[in-house]
Amino acid sequence: MARQERAVRTRRLILEAAGAVFDEHGYTATTISMVLERADVTKGALYFHFASKESLAQAVLDEQVALGAVPPQACKLQELVDMTFVFGQRLLSNSLLKGSVRLAVDQSAPPGVDHAGPFRQWVEHLVVVLERAREQGELLPTVQPRQTVELLVGAFAGLQLMSRALTDREDLAERISVLWGHILPSIALPGLLIGIDRRPDRGIRVLAAADAAADEQAAMDVTAR
Amino acid sequence: MARQERAVRTRRLILEAAGAVFDEHGYTATTISMVLERADVTKGALYFHFASKESLAQAVLDEQVALGAVPPQACKLQELVDMTFVFGQRLLSNSLLKGSVRLAVDQSAPPGVDHAGPFRQWVEHLVVVLERAREQGELLPTVQPRQTVELLVGAFAGLQLMSRALTDREDLAERISVLWGHILPSIALPGLLIGIDRRPDRGIRVLAAADAAADEQAAMDVTAR
Repeated sequence: MARQERAVRTRRLILEAAGAVFDEHGYTATTISMVLERADVTKGALYFHFASKESLAQAVLDEQVALGAVPPQACKLQELVDMTFVFGQRLLSNSLLKGSVRLAVDQSAPPGVDHAGPFRQWVEHLVVVLERAREQGELLPTVQPRQTVELLVGAFAGLQLMSRALTDREDLAERISVLWGHILPSIALPGLLIGIDRRPDRGIRVLAAADAAADEQAAMDVTAR
Repeated sequence: MARQERAVRTRRLILEAAGAVFDEHGYTATTISMVLERADVTKGALYFHFASKESLAQAVLDEQVALGAVPPQACKLQELVDMTFVFGQRLLSNSLLKGSVRLAVDQSAPPGVDHAGPFRQWVEHLVVVLERAREQGELLPTVQPRQTVELLVGAFAGLQLMSRALTDREDLAERISVLWGHILPSIALPGLLIGIDRRPDRGIRVLAAADAAADEQAAMDVTAR
């Protein structure tokens, strides 16, 4: 393995361990030693990538929005719906994401850690999709995309928190489905409503389809060699 | 002052101090000494009311729903809307409430503290109002009150969190107004929509009217003596 590739892997390993520890213990109670033990890397390796607990927390926060990618859809409202279901689904198993979400709702991070960053980044990320939906004529004329997106981001943050508190996120997909059932009629052209899939297993199906497409691509790459 | 009245006052003083300290430092970093210093009471007085940090946190959590009371309205959907605006308004100045909300979204409280309690209590509290709205014929026939209320409670938790992270809750009333703008069309009879007041200053106005009514009542009590 080339030296650079190894460094990228080690950094990832540390981030995933840090996510898991931040998720379990929160910012205040997390120590660098706990992350070292979880990642099973040397102190030198960790400090090569991250100067402090603050910079580790910041890096975990910065990964959040990148982990929300979904396959594009012709209907941009469907793509927006998919983003929430896929993110909810990934949140069940991805420790880095869990840690990142906990840090974002944690008020105890020091001023040097921008724990509000993911809120702003999600808004900027989603507003592009909703603006596209508007250009394509999917929205009611009264919709203000930024306002709607700010609502979606805030509401999602609370729903995942409530779901975590009550059922360890087991009912999160159900809650996301209810959210869209209440929001879509206020933003989508009525004719679109019946065609938008907001069933709770949407996230599982989107991820399975994306995996199948990736496998097919890999098989074609092998044949082409 | 009678002994019992003094005990009630001291308990309240301690709860308010604890709310402020939990709000500022979170569960983990809060110590009994910090609460003692803030409340300016003796250790004996505190331990008379609360056996531990856990029971102090639980008491702060238990106060939350009681602090959300609003004057009744003929239109029960308006009363529900009022509850969110009044709670949002109180959250700007009431330290006990701030601390209670922070504890509810804090994952670091030990198993002995039921930090998910306020979520459940809010649902039970609000579902009664939405059921009344249904009985009065205010709702679309497709509405399932419990489902809608679970959405409202979760969404509100996230919106106040996002508002706190981005603007120290300065824009919370605006965000509550946007929430209702998106939810009401999916639950209320269309004819009701224009009559429901969801302007951002609704909370301020409801509280001012309640204060005026209380003053008037007090004046009448004096006259009647």
